[in-house]
Formats: sequence, C-alpha cells, structure tokens
Amino acid sequence: MTTTALILAAGKGTRMRSSLPKVLHPLCGWPMTRWVMEAAKGAGAAPVVVVGHQAERVRAALGDGAGYALQAEQKGTGHAVLCAADALPRAGVLLVLAGDTPLVRPETLRALLDGHGDALCTVLTAMLEPHEVPASAYGRLVRDAEGRAQRVVEAANATPPERLVREYNSGIYAFDAAWLIDEVLPALQPHPPKGELYLTDAVEAAAARGRLQAVCHPDADELMGVNDRAALSVAEAALRARINQAWMLAGVTLRDPGSAYVDAGVRLSPDVTLGPGVVLSGACVLEEGVTVGAHAVLTDTVVRAGATIKPGTVCEGAEVGPEATVGPMARLREGTVLGRKVKVGNFVETKKARLDDGVKASHLSYLGDTHVGADTNIGAGTITCNYDGFGKHHTEIGAGVFVGSNAALVAPVTVGHGALIAAGSVITTDVPDDALALGRGRQRNLPDRAAELRARFAERAGKVPR
Amino acid sequence: MTTTALILAAGKGTRMRSSLPKVLHPLCGWPMTRWVMEAAKGAGAAPVVVVGHQAERVRAALGDGAGYALQAEQKGTGHAVLCAADALPRAGVLLVLAGDTPLVRPETLRALLDGHGDALCTVLTAMLEPHEVPASAYGRLVRDAEGRAQRVVEAANATPPERLVREYNSGIYAFDAAWLIDEVLPALQPHPPKGELYLTDAVEAAAARGRLQAVCHPDADELMGVNDRAALSVAEAALRARINQAWMLAGVTLRDPGSAYVDAGVRLSPDVTLGPGVVLSGACVLEEGVTVGAHAVLTDTVVRAGATIKPGTVCEGAEVGPEATVGPMARLREGTVLGRKVKVGNFVETKKARLDDGVKASHLSYLGDTHVGADTNIGAGTITCNYDGFGKHHTEIGAGVFVGSNAALVAPVTVGHGALIAAGSVITTDVPDDALALGRGRQRNLPDRAAELRARFAERAGKVPR
Amino acid sequence: MTTTALILAAGKGTRMRSSLPKVLHPLCGWPMTRWVMEAAKGAGAAPVVVVGHQAERVRAALGDGAGYALQAEQKGTGHAVLCAADALPRAGVLLVLAGDTPLVRPETLRALLDGHGDALCTVLTAMLEPHEVPASAYGRLVRDAEGRAQRVVEAANATPPERLVREYNSGIYAFDAAWLIDEVLPALQPHPPKGELYLTDAVEAAAARGRLQAVCHPDADELMGVNDRAALSVAEAALRARINQAWMLAGVTLRDPGSAYVDAGVRLSPDVTLGPGVVLSGACVLEEGVTVGAHAVLTDTVVRAGATIKPGTVCEGAEVGPEATVGPMARLREGTVLGRKVKVGNFVETKKARLDDGVKASHLSYLGDTHVGADTNIGAGTITCNYDGFGKHHTEIGAGVFVGSNAALVAPVTVGHGALIAAGSVITTDVPDDALALGRGRQRNLPDRAAELRARFAERAGKVPR
Repeated sequence: MTTTALILAAGKGTRMRSSLPKVLHPLCGWPMTRWVMEAAKGAGAAPVVVVGHQAERVRAALGDGAGYALQAEQKGTGHAVLCAADALPRAGVLLVLAGDTPLVRPETLRALLDGHGDALCTVLTAMLEPHEVPASAYGRLVRDAEGRAQRVVEAANATPPERLVREYNSGIYAFDAAWLIDEVLPALQPHPPKGELYLTDAVEAAAARGRLQAVCHPDADELMGVNDRAALSVAEAALRARINQAWMLAGVTLRDPGSAYVDAGVRLSPDVTLGPGVVLSGACVLEEGVTVGAHAVLTDTVVRAGATIKPGTVCEGAEVGPEATVGPMARLREGTVLGRKVKVGNFVETKKARLDDGVKASHLSYLGDTHVGADTNIGAGTITCNYDGFGKHHTEIGAGVFVGSNAALVAPVTVGHGALIAAGSVITTDVPDDALALGRGRQRNLPDRAAELRARFAERAGKVPR
Repeated sequence: MTTTALILAAGKGTRMRSSLPKVLHPLCGWPMTRWVMEAAKGAGAAPVVVVGHQAERVRAALGDGAGYALQAEQKGTGHAVLCAADALPRAGVLLVLAGDTPLVRPETLRALLDGHGDALCTVLTAMLEPHEVPASAYGRLVRDAEGRAQRVVEAANATPPERLVREYNSGIYAFDAAWLIDEVLPALQPHPPKGELYLTDAVEAAAARGRLQAVCHPDADELMGVNDRAALSVAEAALRARINQAWMLAGVTLRDPGSAYVDAGVRLSPDVTLGPGVVLSGACVLEEGVTVGAHAVLTDTVVRAGATIKPGTVCEGAEVGPEATVGPMARLREGTVLGRKVKVGNFVETKKARLDDGVKASHLSYLGDTHVGADTNIGAGTITCNYDGFGKHHTEIGAGVFVGSNAALVAPVTVGHGALIAAGSVITTDVPDDALALGRGRQRNLPDRAAELRARFAERAGKVPR
Repeated sequence: MTTTALILAAGKGTRMRSSLPKVLHPLCGWPMTRWVMEAAKGAGAAPVVVVGHQAERVRAALGDGAGYALQAEQKGTGHAVLCAADALPRAGVLLVLAGDTPLVRPETLRALLDGHGDALCTVLTAMLEPHEVPASAYGRLVRDAEGRAQRVVEAANATPPERLVREYNSGIYAFDAAWLIDEVLPALQPHPPKGELYLTDAVEAAAARGRLQAVCHPDADELMGVNDRAALSVAEAALRARINQAWMLAGVTLRDPGSAYVDAGVRLSPDVTLGPGVVLSGACVLEEGVTVGAHAVLTDTVVRAGATIKPGTVCEGAEVGPEATVGPMARLREGTVLGRKVKVGNFVETKKARLDDGVKASHLSYLGDTHVGADTNIGAGTITCNYDGFGKHHTEIGAGVFVGSNAALVAPVTVGHGALIAAGSVITTDVPDDALALGRGRQRNLPDRAAELRARFAERAGKVPR
C-alpha cells in the first residue's frame, strides 16, 4: 500500500532568532527535518517536504531523499497540504508531520499506521503530565464512554471538563489520502482573522463521519516540537543519548556518554573507546579497537583498527592507518593519509600529506603537499615550504630518510631515499639518494662575548645587566 | 521609598576548607556575594555588605557597588546588623540577606517587599520536601487557622506537631528599618553559650506585636545557602543553566548547554554558536554569527561578526576581526588585534600583535610585539624574537610581505612593504621595501655521506646501521 | 573472626562485545573488579577472586591484593565456589560477590556481616521500584508474617502473589564458611539443561534449616551488575560522582563536577581548582592551591603547591614545581621535572627534561633528554636534537643561559653557564661558559629582487603577480 509522509517545513521559525531557517538547524549532524524524513522512510513512507521560507536553501540542504512542494505564503496547515496536493498520490495513506519534530521514531509512525485501519483520519496523541494540563494550549482528544475517539477540541473551545483531559493532539496524523485531498481540502474554509486553512477542520470532518481514530503514544517527549534554541538543545541531547546508547550496546566504551558527541553519520566498531569531550562529526569511521583521547575533534575521518588518537587532536578529512598514533594536540587536515604504525606527534600539522608505513613526525612540524616514504624520520620543527605566495608545490621525501630538526624543505623539491638532512638546513634543491645535505651556517663560539652583548641589551632596556 | 539590603558576608566559611573567604568563591565569573548584591539592586534595594573575615579583601573584590560595614568579631546575625546600624537609613524597609545565597532572584526579593506592607517583619519562607521534614534544622513558620503568620519556632524548640511543618524560614527578611534599628537591636539579649545576638529575636518581637508576615517562595532551591564546595558546584550549575537558557532564547545555539561555561559578564548575539566544552570568561563579546568550536577557552576577548574560532583555541584579552578564522589550537594573548579576514592557524601564538586585514599566519609561529601590514603571509615556523633577556622589542612588518618558513626576525627590526624573506632566514637588520632578504646557509649535498654518518651514529648507540 | 570474600570473575561478559574480559573494563582508573576487591577489604574481608575467561590476564591486572582460584569451565555460581574450595578457610564467614558489581560499598558489606549473626546464609536484598516489579527476573525474598526471611524464590517459580514482592536477591551473600564448603557444596546437584550448579541451592538449604537471613539495603543502585557498556557508563558516572563529592567536601573546587574525571588513585589538596573537562588519571598528586585549567589531561603527574596548569595541557609522568606555570597547550612527557617558578608555555614539549628553578621555555620548543640550569631562557622554536636515528643523546644547558629563537642544539652537546646562543643557530659543538655562539647564515638584502621572484613564482603557478 502506498504511504506518503507530508512534512511541513515552510515556516521561518521566528523564535529561533536566526538567519537560518528553523528546519535546517543541525541536530547531531543532520538538519532538523532530515530526522523527520528518516523517520518517515523508516516507517515505509515516501517523504514529501513542504518548503516556503528560504525554500531553495531548505531543499538543497535536505537533498533528493524527498519530494518537494512549495507553499509560497504560509496560510495555515490546511493550506500547506493543499499546496502539495499535486505532488501527492491519491491512493493509500497520507501521514502529515511537522518538520520540527525531530525526535519522532519510525516505530511510532509505524504504530500510527497500524492503528489507522480504514479510518479517514487517525490522530497521534500523547498524555500531558497532570501539572501541565491547566496551562496547555493543545487540542484535547475527546473519547466516548467506550474509549473511542470522538473528536479533537481546541483548548480555546474546550468545556471545563474537556480542559481536564490529559490526552492531546500531537499534530501528527494519518489520513485516507484520496478522501483528504479530493473531498476535504477543496472544501476547507478560511478562518479569521488571517484567513488560514486549518488541518484540524479535516480532523473534524472525519469525526463528523464517525471515522476518526486516535493512537496514544506513551512517550510524549518524543513528539516535542522545536520552536526555540532551548528546545533545540533538548532535542540534541535526546538524539545524542539515543545514538550513544546504541553504540554502547554495540560494544563502544564512552567514558562519559553525556559528553560524547557522535553525529548520526558516524560508524563505530566494537572496542572503540571515546574519552570525554570527543566530537565525531560528519562521516567518521572508526574501526575495531580505536581509542580516541579526551577532547579530540574528528570530522570526516577514517581511523583504521588499533590506531590511537591522543587528547586534543583535531582531524578533518584524514585517514589514519592501522596501529598509528596521532597526537596529543596534532592536527590532520584534508588529504592526509597515514600508513600503518605511523606516528604523528604533538604540534604537528599535515595537509595533503601521505605518510607511508612507519613514518615518524613526532613534534612541531608542518607537512603539506608531501609524500613521505616508509620509515622516514621527520625531525622536530621540520617545515615543508609548500607555498610561495602564488601556488602550492610538492615535496617528495623518500623512504628511510632522516630529516634533522628545524629543517625547511622548499618545494618543489625531492629528497632521495636514505638521505640525511642536517638539522637546521634549508633545502632548496633536490637531494640524491643516500646523500647528506647541509644548508646552514657554521657554528662559531666567541669567548666571553655574552657579557658584552648582555650589557648592550641591558643598556637598551634601561636595566642593569646580570 | 528607601529600601536597603543588608548582606551578611562576615563569616569565614570553615566548611569550604579554603584560604579564600567563602563569599568570594567565584560563580560564573562573579564572587558569590556579587550575585546577592545584584539581586538586591535588581529589586530596587541599595546593598550594604557586612564584612568581617578578611574584610579588606572581600571589600576590594566586591567593589564599590555597595556600602560596607565591619563586623570585627562574628557574634551572631543580630550582632551583624547592629554593627551596620550606623550605615543604615532609618526610613523605609531593610532587607536582610546572607551573602552565601547566590541563587536568589531580584523578582523574589521584589515579591517579599510587595508582601511586606506595613508589617514590622516579613519572613521569606519556602517548603521542605516531605522527606526532608524530619531531619531539617530550619526554623518552622507557624501559621494560625486563618493562615496568618504567627511566629517562627526554631527546630530545637518545636513541638512534635510543629516539627511536621514544611514551611521554613529561609533567613531572608524584610524589616521596618526604624523599628528594627532603633527599637529592637538595642534591646537584643546575648544567648549562651557564645553570647551571640540572634536576628530571630527580632522576628519574635514582631510576632509578639502581631505584625509578623511571611511570603512563601515556590522555589526552595533558589534560597539555598552555600556552605561547602559541593553546594558551590550546585549553585554554579544552577547559575550556568540560567545564563545558558537566557542566551538560547536570545538566539544562541549551545550544542550542549550542560558543557557551555559562559560567565555573567559575557555578551552574545543571535546566531552565535558554541560547541561543547567552550569556556567564555570575563568580559567576552561575541558578535552575530560567530562560531566557537569545541573546547575553546576565551577570556576578555571580542570577536567580530562572522568570525570563526576553531576547536581548542585559547584567547585572552584579544580582539578578532570580522570574518577572521582562528585556530584550531591557536593562542591569542593580550593586546592581539586581528583585522578583517585574518587567518591565524594551528600552533600560532600572538601577543601585543596587530595583524591588519587579510594577514595569514597559518602554522607554528610566534608573533609578539609586532605589527603586520595587510595581506602579508607569515610562513610556518616564523618567530619574532622580541626578547633579548632584558626588554621586549618591536617588529614592524609591512603590507604584502612574504615571510618564508622558519624565519627568525630579531627585534627591533623592520621589514618593508612587499619584501620577501627567504625560508630559514635570520633577519637582524631592516629589510627595505620590495627587497629579498636571505640569511641562511647555502645548501651542499655530500653524495653517499649518509651511510658514513649512519654508521657513526649506530656505533655511538651500539647498534647495527641499517 | 576470619572473613573471606569470594569474588566471581570468571565469565566472559558476552554483552560487553569486547576482547577485554568484562571484569577488567576500567572504571575511574581501576579494573571493574578491583572496586569489588577494595570494598571487600574495606569491610575487613580477604578477597579471593575466581578467574576463568582469560584467567591469567585478569589475575595480572587485578594484582596480588587478592588470592585466586581457577574456574576453567563456567558451570554455574555453585561450581565457581566449588572451584575455589581449596583456597578458602573453613572458619568464619564467606562473603560471595559478583565481580561485576563495582558500586558496592564497604559499609554495605559490613552491614551484611553485622546482620549475619549465626545464620547459615544471609542474603543481601534491595527493593525494586514498583514499576520494575512485574518485569523483574530477580529472585524474590519471601518473608513470613513476622518479617523473618523464609526463602528465595526464583522469578520463574514464583506464585502470582510472590511475583508482587519488591524485595529481591542481589546475589551477594554471607555464608557460614564451613557449612557451605564442607556440607552444601559437595551435595549440590547439577541443573538441566547445562548441568550447572546453582549457589541458590545453598540458600535453599539454609532456608530448609530455618537459618536463612536477609539484610535489605536501602540503595538498590549500589548493587547493580554491569553487563553491557551502557551499564558500564552508569557505573562510571556513579563512581565519578562519589569521588568528586568527596574531594569537594575536602576543599577542592570542581567548576563542573559532571565533567571532572578524577581517577581513584589521584590525591588532591585543599584549594585545588579543576576547570571543566579536566582528566586526572593514574597516580596524580596535586598539592595545595594548584589550578588546572579547562580540558587539561594529566596522567601520573605530581604538581607542587601553587602551580598552575593552563587549559589544554597534557602531562604524563611529569613533576611540576611549586608556583610553576605550564601551558596552555603544553605537553610534558615522562621524566619531566620542573623546578620552582618554571614557566613552560604553549606548544612546548618536554621529555626526560629537568628544568631548574626559574627556567622559561615559553613557546614552540622541544626539550628532550636535557638538563637546563636555573634562570635560563629558552627562546621560541628551540629544539634539542636528541635523536640521530639510532640513539638518544643528552643536551646540557647551563644556568643563566639565553638560547635565541629557532636554535637547534644537536646532542650530545653542552652549553656553558651564562652563554648566549644567537637566534637561528645550529649548535653542534660545546659552547663555553659566557661565550656567544652563532651558527647561522649572514643576512643579505637584495634590493628590488622581491618583484622578480614574485614574477617567477606567479608564472610557475600560472597566475598574474601582484
């Protein structure tokens, strides 16, 4: 049977106080409405998103996993559905959801569909906590003595006993598609003062025909709408908890799940361990036995089995080889590919850098636009001078090379296999295999001259020398 | 009408186990009692703080937003008020609060004042949770059958039915100032064994005159006193939540409000985004659209619109220009001023450094006591040698300069506009505009000498060369 | 009286999905079962651990604070005790505990022992929350009308009224050792289908003799078993809260105890302050007045009184002297010893480095295998070249030395007291006391050559020069 999920995402979301449309605010790596789309798909429904405010931006961000309809003006929920009518099949069931309810689960929508049967409209409801009842502005579901759904009454129109009803309309519906689109929508009447069309009138029409149903969901929190950034943070925390719980049950150790930030698109493996404050964004993949130390931040990075990322390391678009160690406080940028057992240490930055198996770059280096052969040792303070102010150039370093500390390799340049670069050298021309390259001044010691210099410096500073 | 708020802050706070007076322990950037002062001011009352333990230090830390009175010896709450009598107006209402109740809100004090009317004393009360009742040492508020406040009975003197009373005395009072100071205080009798004067005797005096009132506050947590560091952390968390909630509703995204640490004095703007673990201390100002990555720590730093602070960056007393990017793992120190679209990258430190629009210092550099002209490129590993062991000296770098990697600029020195500094150079004398400066050794390649050197090194290490 | 605690730790813990045995998963720095061992010791019982899965690894990790017995095959709890029979004294009381209940406290076991009296078996029980009752698979404790423990009935065998009992068997027992080992164990009958021996049969035997007791513990959370990594994270959070609460009451400020990670073996002092995200692992000792900034990660590090560790710093196996300052973003490695008032600044790494009183190494340096005399200043970018590809060598730097920026000191080498090293020098031979050492190229300025070079670079990049 055809099931379509119409997701209403045309509003601006004024209370977000943002230049970004509300439905695009990110939650664990996805735009808010992507979560609703995925829930719909997970329930077997094809999503169609109604866009309006910044329509093109929303459409681009949500991608081609959904159909789209344009609601150019925002004139009510009924109007939103009407705007999408051409994009909707007449057969089967039409789910209607808001794009700002990111916590709704596929199984919840599945339960709504299962409960729909041959009703014209089925409302997904939940229960208010007793203390929320008096203040709530939600429409209440009125049931008859046998517990059958009779109608939804808006809070403003509710009688005093009806106002005590705890079961409320979540705004998520299943409709008989043909009936809604062809019979009800064309007959909707605008409501003063703004002339909006209300989808709740369709609920009323189903009730009038005695074919209204309600499915009550036990977890009201899951149906929350996000209207401001406080609610956004609550939704983020809920999704984070859900993601983290799943990974823990799959064999991942999170030292503090409250401070592990794992995006929806990340893939982890058993015996991965994440320290506190770790942020994994985008399409990270961490293989078996990988350890990520405290406060490391990885984006779109692949870490092979048994590798260790030490605290405070930042990686973007990198690939870390098996049993490699990176950090602490290293920074791997896009195009970094580290081989097996490579070691990249503190205060080292790599970019478009391929380091073959066993390479060590342990301290204070910049390796950009470079290939380093196996087992080469990069001394502390080594810089590949890849930029000349106009273009980027390549540095090729062979296997088994020893680059002394504080060396500068001015690209384009090639250092042959087995070469030795003396500490402090500036290398501007190619170094043959097995050669020793020096490019530095010769040391001179000037006896007793320190005192003389100190006196000069002290005088300059208006101080007495030591 | 005159309202004065007398804040009792003379105690040592032994259970804090600290050399810092309890009332000065910081909470979200303010000393604890500053929060009470601000609440009093927010309710329209002029604060007077009673100091005693480390009086001068407390006074200096709380500043001149309050009057002060000295309680040289701590001989009870009544004695504290007596010590302040000379500093207090006789007209209007006198609020009395403890300096260790930092969560009290202005509107709560306002409600106490509104309820005070023409009473002689009004007690602010709150309700114990039922399970707290039996153990509580608080004084209970006894009301008559009509619900009118009759008296406060200390836990030790309470009858069994009185001990079941949930409403307790928070220790926050409004008094008729003239009556308290001129009639009651002079008549207070010392209590054995320590000869202390109790302010609760003034409450009793008001009750005896039939002019005691009570205002019950619905949120008992807000009235908590801080007596040890566990309570201090609870208070910090409550204030943090309050600050964060307000910023979120104002349009700031906090990816995890539970781990966003924003001091009271910080100012944020819509579409600011703070990653997890971000710490904003002192007088930070972040303009619209600023993004601060995970675990960055900013103190007294201004960040202009659209700038990006990447993860793990530390800033103190810096100003970051519009659309600039800083970090990850950069460190901006006092006196740093970055222009528009400046880029400061990883492992770069700046201090008293002005970088004009478009400057790039992307890696592993130290820029201190320097001015860098627009669009200049600072190569990786560049060091301004600003210190000679006695004084700090200035480095002036022109616009459109290209400083090669691993260059050392020995201050005082000037590099002219458009100059080029060769990689690895040590610059000790001025470089004219558009000149190329080199200060490095010339490269020599010694063919096949690597093996010879390796053999020597291996022998030295007692190993077999590769 | 002899008390032995038999701790069952032979299982694999399949639901952990780990190559590490469940009982070795770390919690606040200790393997899970170490917590149970310590609780037993704290209650005066000598621990004996039953190992099986990866027995040698478990034994090695738990160390010689316990006796061990091997259960080669896992054939039930009764079988586990039977396997240990040879290692157990017949006198006194035998506690039996699971190795995966890390939250149990010494005082809880003490209460169980105190309640045991002359019973043959005493069961430690706790109360299910009402909503947990119907689903619980725990054995229920059945009491008679006088409240005396009668028997434990397994959930599967419970009558409907028995299933409503909230008091359940935690699986922690005190037994009369001689009775259990010599009378009951030899008579245990295997249960189909796996032929396991159940310790609950011993409970039944005690009940049959009318000598069963039960001690009900008020905190069910404390008796939780860890079976998956979600439970592991709950246990970690509970232990973390316990540790943090104790330190706060002892005078330590934790700005956010929810994100302070202090291992069981760490020792703190009054007026220590830990920022958010701080991780203290292993055997750290922090003396009075030490401040550790946000997100610093310290392992096995001693910090003397009044020292400051700034944000993002990583230390392992280091010792930081009194009033020293380290970081932000510094990295101290094993064998680092800093004297009084030493300053190690950002992007500085030390390893096997002794820095005497007053040394400053403020920026971008690597100091390895070195001793630096008092009051020496290490310039930004200084590198000790301690590695030649084969061995590590020592650099000796005297007192009162000034090492210029970007200097490379090629070890083994000695710099005498009071010497000056010019910026950018490569030092390969010893520098006498008070000498000035230079080892760098001489600066040449080539007028107007920048434009020429730029044109060449632009052409190379296919761009138009500026």
